[in-house]
Amino acid sequence: MKLLIINGPNLNLIGQREEEIYGKESFLDYFEALKVNKKIDLDYFQSNIEGVMIDTLQSSNHDGVILNAGGYTHTSVAIRDCVKAIKVPVVEVHISNIMERESFRHVSMISAVAEGCIFGFGLKSYDLAIDYFLQK
Amino acid sequence: MKLLIINGPNLNLIGQREEEIYGKESFLDYFEALKVNKKIDLDYFQSNIEGVMIDTLQSSNHDGVILNAGGYTHTSVAIRDCVKAIKVPVVEVHISNIMERESFRHVSMISAVAEGCIFGFGLKSYDLAIDYFLQK
Amino acid sequence: MKLLIINGPNLNLIGQREEEIYGKESFLDYFEALKVNKKIDLDYFQSNIEGVMIDTLQSSNHDGVILNAGGYTHTSVAIRDCVKAIKVPVVEVHISNIMERESFRHVSMISAVAEGCIFGFGLKSYDLAIDYFLQK
Amino acid sequence: MKLLIINGPNLNLIGQREEEIYGKESFLDYFEALKVNKKIDLDYFQSNIEGVMIDTLQSSNHDGVILNAGGYTHTSVAIRDCVKAIKVPVVEVHISNIMERESFRHVSMISAVAEGCIFGFGLKSYDLAIDYFLQK
Amino acid sequence: MKLLIINGPNLNLIGQREEEIYGKESFLDYFEALKVNKKIDLDYFQSNIEGVMIDTLQSSNHDGVILNAGGYTHTSVAIRDCVKAIKVPVVEVHISNIMERESFRHVSMISAVAEGCIFGFGLKSYDLAIDYFLQK
Amino acid sequence: MKLLIINGPNLNLIGQREEEIYGKESFLDYFEALKVNKKIDLDYFQSNIEGVMIDTLQSSNHDGVILNAGGYTHTSVAIRDCVKAIKVPVVEVHISNIMERESFRHVSMISAVAEGCIFGFGLKSYDLAIDYFLQK
Amino acid sequence: MKLLIINGPNLNLIGQREEEIYGKESFLDYFEALKVNKKIDLDYFQSNIEGVMIDTLQSSNHDGVILNAGGYTHTSVAIRDCVKAIKVPVVEVHISNIMERESFRHVSMISAVAEGCIFGFGLKSYDLAIDYFLQK
Amino acid sequence: MKLLIINGPNLNLIGQREEEIYGKESFLDYFEALKVNKKIDLDYFQSNIEGVMIDTLQSSNHDGVILNAGGYTHTSVAIRDCVKAIKVPVVEVHISNIMERESFRHVSMISAVAEGCIFGFGLKSYDLAIDYFLQK
Amino acid sequence: MKLLIINGPNLNLIGQREEEIYGKESFLDYFEALKVNKKIDLDYFQSNIEGVMIDTLQSSNHDGVILNAGGYTHTSVAIRDCVKAIKVPVVEVHISNIMERESFRHVSMISAVAEGCIFGFGLKSYDLAIDYFLQK
Amino acid sequence: MKLLIINGPNLNLIGQREEEIYGKESFLDYFEALKVNKKIDLDYFQSNIEGVMIDTLQSSNHDGVILNAGGYTHTSVAIRDCVKAIKVPVVEVHISNIMERESFRHVSMISAVAEGCIFGFGLKSYDLAIDYFLQK
Amino acid sequence: MKLLIINGPNLNLIGQREEEIYGKESFLDYFEALKVNKKIDLDYFQSNIEGVMIDTLQSSNHDGVILNAGGYTHTSVAIRDCVKAIKVPVVEVHISNIMERESFRHVSMISAVAEGCIFGFGLKSYDLAIDYFLQK
Amino acid sequence: MKLLIINGPNLNLIGQREEEIYGKESFLDYFEALKVNKKIDLDYFQSNIEGVMIDTLQSSNHDGVILNAGGYTHTSVAIRDCVKAIKVPVVEVHISNIMERESFRHVSMISAVAEGCIFGFGLKSYDLAIDYFLQK
Repeated sequence: MKLLIINGPNLNLIGQREEEIYGKESFLDYFEALKVNKKIDLDYFQSNIEGVMIDTLQSSNHDGVILNAGGYTHTSVAIRDCVKAIKVPVVEVHISNIMERESFRHVSMISAVAEGCIFGFGLKSYDLAIDYFLQK
Repeated sequence: MKLLIINGPNLNLIGQREEEIYGKESFLDYFEALKVNKKIDLDYFQSNIEGVMIDTLQSSNHDGVILNAGGYTHTSVAIRDCVKAIKVPVVEVHISNIMERESFRHVSMISAVAEGCIFGFGLKSYDLAIDYFLQK
Repeated sequence: MKLLIINGPNLNLIGQREEEIYGKESFLDYFEALKVNKKIDLDYFQSNIEGVMIDTLQSSNHDGVILNAGGYTHTSVAIRDCVKAIKVPVVEVHISNIMERESFRHVSMISAVAEGCIFGFGLKSYDLAIDYFLQK
Repeated sequence: MKLLIINGPNLNLIGQREEEIYGKESFLDYFEALKVNKKIDLDYFQSNIEGVMIDTLQSSNHDGVILNAGGYTHTSVAIRDCVKAIKVPVVEVHISNIMERESFRHVSMISAVAEGCIFGFGLKSYDLAIDYFLQK
Repeated sequence: MKLLIINGPNLNLIGQREEEIYGKESFLDYFEALKVNKKIDLDYFQSNIEGVMIDTLQSSNHDGVILNAGGYTHTSVAIRDCVKAIKVPVVEVHISNIMERESFRHVSMISAVAEGCIFGFGLKSYDLAIDYFLQK
Repeated sequence: MKLLIINGPNLNLIGQREEEIYGKESFLDYFEALKVNKKIDLDYFQSNIEGVMIDTLQSSNHDGVILNAGGYTHTSVAIRDCVKAIKVPVVEVHISNIMERESFRHVSMISAVAEGCIFGFGLKSYDLAIDYFLQK
Repeated sequence: MKLLIINGPNLNLIGQREEEIYGKESFLDYFEALKVNKKIDLDYFQSNIEGVMIDTLQSSNHDGVILNAGGYTHTSVAIRDCVKAIKVPVVEVHISNIMERESFRHVSMISAVAEGCIFGFGLKSYDLAIDYFLQK
Repeated sequence: MKLLIINGPNLNLIGQREEEIYGKESFLDYFEALKVNKKIDLDYFQSNIEGVMIDTLQSSNHDGVILNAGGYTHTSVAIRDCVKAIKVPVVEVHISNIMERESFRHVSMISAVAEGCIFGFGLKSYDLAIDYFLQK
Repeated sequence: MKLLIINGPNLNLIGQREEEIYGKESFLDYFEALKVNKKIDLDYFQSNIEGVMIDTLQSSNHDGVILNAGGYTHTSVAIRDCVKAIKVPVVEVHISNIMERESFRHVSMISAVAEGCIFGFGLKSYDLAIDYFLQK
Repeated sequence: MKLLIINGPNLNLIGQREEEIYGKESFLDYFEALKVNKKIDLDYFQSNIEGVMIDTLQSSNHDGVILNAGGYTHTSVAIRDCVKAIKVPVVEVHISNIMERESFRHVSMISAVAEGCIFGFGLKSYDLAIDYFLQK
Repeated sequence: MKLLIINGPNLNLIGQREEEIYGKESFLDYFEALKVNKKIDLDYFQSNIEGVMIDTLQSSNHDGVILNAGGYTHTSVAIRDCVKAIKVPVVEVHISNIMERESFRHVSMISAVAEGCIFGFGLKSYDLAIDYFLQK
Repeated sequence: MKLLIINGPNLNLIGQREEEIYGKESFLDYFEALKVNKKIDLDYFQSNIEGVMIDTLQSSNHDGVILNAGGYTHTSVAIRDCVKAIKVPVVEVHISNIMERESFRHVSMISAVAEGCIFGFGLKSYDLAIDYFLQK
């Protein structure tokens, strides 16, 4: 099994900024630990550019994608269309509980076309998404 | 670790009805297997009555509650207030992907006061919620 | 043919209160006359508790249910889910013309999953629902 | 007792088109059988023109009108005003369950000024409306 | 000076129905008195059919039209387009105070393209519209 | 017969500003001509202060008030309450066609409690309001 | 004079939870002191179940009910219908200032059918409601 | 203890107008009786001018203000800002049950910044507000 | 191949009115040229009456209909139902760019049931619709 | 160059109240320093009364007005109309960042008719407005 | 004549995915055939990146652009601004009938600034857009 | 002090297009003059790509950023998140008065997280933003 984590805009800043929302751990440190713990083939990609995220989704040949589209979650019809069009199953994750934040974060364009969605567990949201693919 | 699963209205019918949404497996069969697989102390409670669910939440002395409030998810201020008031951490789960169903199911009154939310993975949504408590 | 009438909250007060809306006849008197006139096997159940109405719907083994969900009509996703989940056909009735009352009564959560809906004919709404099952 | 059925736009096509919604029976065949079965004096009028339906409502001298205003149901203030202005009692019927179709069909301009409303029972909706007038 | 009064749906019933809103005087009696009092060349047309009202507006060669579009006031883009397209100036009138009635009567599609609007003065609304054309 | 014209905020600027909307004539010149033409006892009051307009309405002992509340028209519950509370009949007027201007001008808080409303005829709107009181 | 206080869901937790909103005093301690101070015959009932609250309201034979419907305040048509249907006068109270909390708490289904409403004074809201019945 | 009652627009007319809403008693008579009954130092101020009400609030050196902002209740950000800015505690009162009147009266700009709110008890609303300050 | 163009209300005025929107060419001149240029069997029908347009659509035996429903485009459920019910394919056209005009023109009831839609190209919109049928 | 600063309701309290929003500096101290620093002829006017602010705007003969309309910003059509009607250019300023406060502060009636708008810079917002007039 | 087709996000997948919506033909095959059939100088550009589409639009020196902005159609103010700012005329096309899909696809930010719009004809939508430029 | 100006999509066209909105001056000419006049270290960056703007914001080590996000202003949660996450203070500017343009331009996603906002002063908006940083 080979999985891909795609992080969207500003998620490269995790661990450096807004620690009260995203925690103190850098995503790359977390990612390295994750590969070791889960013992799976795991790739990571981050971009601030919506269209480059779509390019990456389209060219993925993984068994599953774990997608945190960051700020594009709430407005991107293009990412939604991409998730629906590709054959690789996609699980949507969010670090924070998007439903207790501003109201414009309560809507996700992606949820309806993802296999499922996990949010609010901090970085553990990624753990749970991997567990899902492993148990499937 | 001792956990409690609370299922709300009509979730006693899982496996008997609307198999295209909820699958064919009975929840009780699934629950028995879950106890064996996860090797934890796990209780189960189901009610169709909103206030009885609140009674159960208030009197819980578990380490965590996994709550699928069914149809009350979308309207119940009372369950929300209860989840916020009690000290036991609550994870919200849904079997189906509520965001690809009718628009009145897109709003959850509970998400904002839960630790996090997992939906769309079929009965595996409960698995992942237990994993979360185990890893915590 | 065996039918069940389920009345929701406050409908036990029919004939005692708000006569300009619901008329002067007590529902139980009306019900007794109905059994005689229609010559069918007819049961009656009333509860003020949403979840108890769901319990009753789930355990019904009748050929049809005539459901007046009263105030729960306008908000209950849980009753809607139940009506959709069970195999017994359900006809929705209302005594008053809900469309000429307050705007929050103009929406019914139940209509879309019922076989059909009859409202505004006073207690005769129940008569017509029984006629429908008899003619079917 | 003398009743009048008024059908609005496109209801002349019943039995020829969209059989999954309206069924296979032609309305005229149904109407002839209805006259025989109900043993009442029954007239029938159909028009695609909103204002001609109003002309017919205004000039009716029947004991009751059974009105299916078709697509005008959802927007016509003029038919509403007419139903309210005339003395003949009007019952609103719909063949399909308008509440499980597109959202623009969920609003009826006519319901609030009709005696009552019956929808979702196929052509039997007309039967029940006649029953109402007979029992009244 | 030659003026035309166009009345829309159900306004032929003035004086016969809903006297608390429209008063007891028949429009034709009022119209005859109006011709005498105002000493102008005055025509009158009434139709329940939206498109026939448009035909009449298009073919008018009067110095002004006084238009009470009745129930079409609130929804008719077609009458609006016609009033805007023709060269004859149009004054909108209503007998009742449309702003103290149901909320769907608070919007007029016609006002923005009429010269002006007069409502709430009973049949005197027509008087004032004629005064406007005379003083102009 | 003794009438009072009350003009609200900025209407003292008529004839000096925004001539494409309000015309070139000063209101005071128009007012003087009006008194001569209509041969009635006519008072005039203008204020930019909402509460002073209310003071004036409350203390009026005229046979009628012609009220152009200017920018307060669209928001003032207080003026509405005053118009409803006093015994003197009030006619609402506007110089411009408020329905062809910005959408926030399409709603009047006052219309529903006034006898009637006249708008869009330039300064002639006041003429017509006086005609109404004279003919009444 | 005999009064009844009915508290809805989660109000049994007052004094134990969310002290920043509800204060530290237990409701039962407060209630005992209230009986002594006000020198009236005072009953108390609490339930988390909407329909059981309705049962209690229907069977009350008190001179007045003081109702804090908790989370059901904002959605319950059924409690509203009950308050309207019974003869016992009902005063609505809330401990917190519901208008400075989340927007879904700004709407009360009950206010329009209660005698009056008192909110935001902490437990003193109940005191004032009793004062009202005593002074009446 | 020294309290101030501030009444907003049109509340000087209480007892003279709209008796079905506000009752027959003049506010000044009521106020004189109140001073005697409550045995406190009580001032009274009424104005129809929003900004003068703000001036009064700003310069108050009382132990509490009882504010009925009348028609400004529903729209005034300026009064809200003032209530929030001053140190004197403010209790909002309304004579009528604003929630059973027109929908534009259902929103209060002031409630969220007041200590609490009392409405629907007729002139007794003021009594209860004074009781609150006395018991505090 | 035999096609039918149906034009709705006020489209008989093309070339005579509002030239800035619809151009100077009369539709009949354009139509004659179109028949010559496209070398197909082409019929033309115009009516201001919604129901007569429906009659014409129902009785069409052409290979395709090009429908410009004018002002009925934005509100007519009845024309929508008709287009959906008949077997002849319908292409929706508009002369002007309806999306740069008033907001009430941005919604078309017809688009969702037409084969496709072409707007904004002046009279060339009809050309393109014919091209579509020819290439099909 | 001669400029006028107009401050609306409650802005006389700057420096005394809500220091977390408006800072500790009194506006008059700030104003005196501003006159010295900017070396221009600068007037200052403050009122809590909407209409008095309009009087002042109308009678201004300055080269520019710097307007902070306080709580009237969000609702006043009358101030908007005044700013549009007068010839003196107006710059809108706000001390706080109105877009990070309550949602009812996100709309300004004035912005669309002002030359421009500056908000969120504390008292420096006034500095920048003066700079604009100086650089113009 | 030299034209440019610009396709937005995911339109590179046409012919490979979601054949029920977009058909089986690859866009590149279609494009090659188009160049042959239409005998014009035709360029093609596709990108998943919104800003790169804008770069391409800005640098176009063609006689016309045929733009299918895919998922950016519904949200992109930036593409709208670009289409409005450049001199090259732009025709908007969509393969599917966007009005019979999800409601968030019913709004196009681009239509109002394009010359016209063609949608719902499958790949033939591009054909018709080219025809338009050729006939112009 | 070292500042950075970031311009978003289409702002490279300033001075070339839509002169009635943006003026005739090229931004680069203006920028060069600005560096000379303000005597500060000033960088400039423009991109049509949302994510590249985010990259630039994240890597900025300036003392302040002046951000005109162009069309992304109104929809970009991603830029908002970036502005909030970085430590460099950001001032939002717009050349035109966005509040007098289309309603979709009235909302800014960025304002609430910027230090402040300046709009409507033409290119001088940038001047004022620099003044702010200089005076700070």
